[in-house]
Amino acid sequence: MSATAQLEARFQQIASIDAASGILHWDAATMLPASSTDARGDQLAALAEVSHEKLTDPAMAEWFAAAQSEPLEDWRRANLNEMHWRWSHATSVPQTLVSALTKLRLKSEHQWRSAKETSDYAGFLPIFREVIALTREVAYAKAAALGLSPYDALLDSYDRGLRRATIDPIFTQTKTWLPDFVGEVITHQAAQPTQPLNANVPVATQEALGRAMMLALGFDTTRGRIDTSAHPFCGGAPGDVRITTRYREDRFTDALYGVLHETGHALYEQGLPEAWRGLPIGEARGMSMHESQSLFIEMQVSRSLPFLKFLLPQLTKTFGLSGPAWNEANVYRNLTRVERSHIRVNADEVTYPLHVIWRYELEQALLDGSLEAADLPAAWAEKTQAYLGITPPDHAHGCLQDIHWPEGMFGYFPTYTLGAMTAAQLMAACRRALPQLDAELARGDFAPMLHWLRTHVHQKASSATGEEILRAATGEALNPDHFEAHLRARYLA
Amino acid sequence: MSATAQLEARFQQIASIDAASGILHWDAATMLPASSTDARGDQLAALAEVSHEKLTDPAMAEWFAAAQSEPLEDWRRANLNEMHWRWSHATSVPQTLVSALTKLRLKSEHQWRSAKETSDYAGFLPIFREVIALTREVAYAKAAALGLSPYDALLDSYDRGLRRATIDPIFTQTKTWLPDFVGEVITHQAAQPTQPLNANVPVATQEALGRAMMLALGFDTTRGRIDTSAHPFCGGAPGDVRITTRYREDRFTDALYGVLHETGHALYEQGLPEAWRGLPIGEARGMSMHESQSLFIEMQVSRSLPFLKFLLPQLTKTFGLSGPAWNEANVYRNLTRVERSHIRVNADEVTYPLHVIWRYELEQALLDGSLEAADLPAAWAEKTQAYLGITPPDHAHGCLQDIHWPEGMFGYFPTYTLGAMTAAQLMAACRRALPQLDAELARGDFAPMLHWLRTHVHQKASSATGEEILRAATGEALNPDHFEAHLRARYLA
Repeated sequence: MSATAQLEARFQQIASIDAASGILHWDAATMLPASSTDARGDQLAALAEVSHEKLTDPAMAEWFAAAQSEPLEDWRRANLNEMHWRWSHATSVPQTLVSALTKLRLKSEHQWRSAKETSDYAGFLPIFREVIALTREVAYAKAAALGLSPYDALLDSYDRGLRRATIDPIFTQTKTWLPDFVGEVITHQAAQPTQPLNANVPVATQEALGRAMMLALGFDTTRGRIDTSAHPFCGGAPGDVRITTRYREDRFTDALYGVLHETGHALYEQGLPEAWRGLPIGEARGMSMHESQSLFIEMQVSRSLPFLKFLLPQLTKTFGLSGPAWNEANVYRNLTRVERSHIRVNADEVTYPLHVIWRYELEQALLDGSLEAADLPAAWAEKTQAYLGITPPDHAHGCLQDIHWPEGMFGYFPTYTLGAMTAAQLMAACRRALPQLDAELARGDFAPMLHWLRTHVHQKASSATGEEILRAATGEALNPDHFEAHLRARYLA
Repeated sequence: MSATAQLEARFQQIASIDAASGILHWDAATMLPASSTDARGDQLAALAEVSHEKLTDPAMAEWFAAAQSEPLEDWRRANLNEMHWRWSHATSVPQTLVSALTKLRLKSEHQWRSAKETSDYAGFLPIFREVIALTREVAYAKAAALGLSPYDALLDSYDRGLRRATIDPIFTQTKTWLPDFVGEVITHQAAQPTQPLNANVPVATQEALGRAMMLALGFDTTRGRIDTSAHPFCGGAPGDVRITTRYREDRFTDALYGVLHETGHALYEQGLPEAWRGLPIGEARGMSMHESQSLFIEMQVSRSLPFLKFLLPQLTKTFGLSGPAWNEANVYRNLTRVERSHIRVNADEVTYPLHVIWRYELEQALLDGSLEAADLPAAWAEKTQAYLGITPPDHAHGCLQDIHWPEGMFGYFPTYTLGAMTAAQLMAACRRALPQLDAELARGDFAPMLHWLRTHVHQKASSATGEEILRAATGEALNPDHFEAHLRARYLA
């Protein structure tokens, strides 16, 4: 076996172990008996340890050295490069630090949950300081090994090639217009009275509609499934994609748009090339691109007027609804409602980037030490006031709301907004390629759109960088003007 | 860390990996999308490989050598002995042979499924010969390493300490009376006209009753669950025990007694000592003891008249049944019906041991070469005629019916009947200890019985041999007279 073939076999083995973990994570969120969480923790820890052992095995360095001189087809060369990138990240952090952070993360998540419940930032502060300190150590270790700045090294671990130098100008430009734009939209919407969508819809009915929508969009239920969990997610394993949503009888849009969002992620996963399964080149291209696919479906497609023409008749029929609130214009106004609100995960697509930008700024300051953890609430309130004109009533609605920092995930937040911007840019290109797109969406014919995504995004997997894929699909690098144009067209037209 | 502590940590890691596989096997039978089977196969193969690697790691030999001289508490000494036994089995077979058999097994199982469908023994024969040849190699390798005869080495791998020398006299004695007894019972039952239990019971109603029964018996749903699969089983992981059944609206007893049987297995698993979780000493004591627990609940308890007094009112109430068929005597006659039939898994408890005995005799002959695989159908027909007075109409009802041999599982069959006999002996002892047992069963008070099982079987886990546990619980080694007495009392009284 060539060194490259040995590396490929090893990465396929690691992928299978990680896929097993993916299913166990799904099971933990959907099926696990209440008192079996410790047993599950042991299982997941054992698999994570074995996976990491396999990736950092001393033999890998020799294989990588030998593989450099082996003649390879282009895709295998590209895959070798991806394998090397992952290995570099994994070996850049000393094992003792990895273990320490893993253990600390568990404790921290646990403490964060109770602290959030009681909005007790002071109580969370001691362990939060430890998390920041260890994350900083990880960032410096990665930075030294990869020749990047510490924050760039963290960005790179979620989205290969992502750098502050790319994000800074985009977020700076966004800050010049978005805060005012929010005000304009709110004023604009205030002039259009909207009747709320009051309906009590049984869970089984909501399930049926959600399933109909995901099937219409192209979700393959022979290679995936949908279930219920406390928070919607797309997980499972390659070749076995599992999405979830949650149901409230008095707010069916939560479940429905949860399904639509996760269906976007799932279509990406299900569209990755089968031939490359288990190899890094065959995986999704980072977090920004993944989020672009969920937001393409949830925001670009499913909150559009054409899609509503397809959805509304099924909605009113399945749910047995009628009355003045259920006319197209009013439902559309409900689906595109903009509000200044505190909780990021419930934010609309207009205000969402502001939530992300202040996190982006604050997490860098926390990491480089220019912001003390103790001063975070004050800094948070300052940013929310400056960007969104609101001040959180308590920490649970402020800096304690997200699980990311308590878990040591710094450098992840920007990918949400880069994903939203990528989605807008992809939709603009898709629209150019498919002149009949609106008519197709209105009659529920999603095949041409899905084919376009498959060809230009899904089938590329990780065979090129995110920027290369976006350039090939749209003719340019990430350009936030498409996102701005989308918001102006949808919210001020 | 002492060598013993290192071994313990390693075995706990292996246990966690194997527990992960247990959940993935459960998922494959209950949740897996139709086209995700290949992905699951890769995941399970990767985990099996890693688990085996960890167990056969060269460091283990050194740890075992060093552990011998370490001062240990009794339970740790016993656990060390169990760890060594597992390691001896795992290292006794060369890795190349393990891999070859694993691959062959997959192919063989696949071919067996189609061969069974068309009753095509000739088509299955070539691969079956390969399976026998490789299994023989495994048996010889184990025999050489463990100082046992080849067949004993296989028996030992399913049930530590089980030997032909124990089984032969028991099965020989059984053959002296059971074939005639079957005839007597059938004649006896023919004189008692039985009305069939015709009822169409919706699946949801059957589920509700099954759940009520398993809860009544003591199944802990905070550490386990019940779902549906093609064939009932008890699986999952320590601390997360998952049982299944399957439903036919026109035959509710299938699902109900499936639940009861698997609940017996589950009570054993849930009753193992928490403190020893992940260590070999904390696992169930072999296949015969496991089967004794399922048959204790299904056969000894749930087909008894006292239990029927508890079950029947709930059955008729939940199912809304009435009419002459639903009187206690007639339902009891249905639950204890004896027939000469071809399919082992559907056989009643009276004829079942005969199915096992001819398999026990035939598998030894196949393994030692005194029976050619080509001659199996003829030998099968001869045995079924001699022991049960029937001749299979085709191979699907004969030697192709079971998955065990196609999977290379030789030495497993006897544990079913040893389990039935152990169950009868345990019940006799339990009855001596609990003079009010029948009254308790009749009112659905299973706590005293479960406490007895917990104390004398479940909590012992693998801290002693099966024979030691049975002796301590009942005062004697396995004695088939209890089983005979049970059958005579139940079927000819």
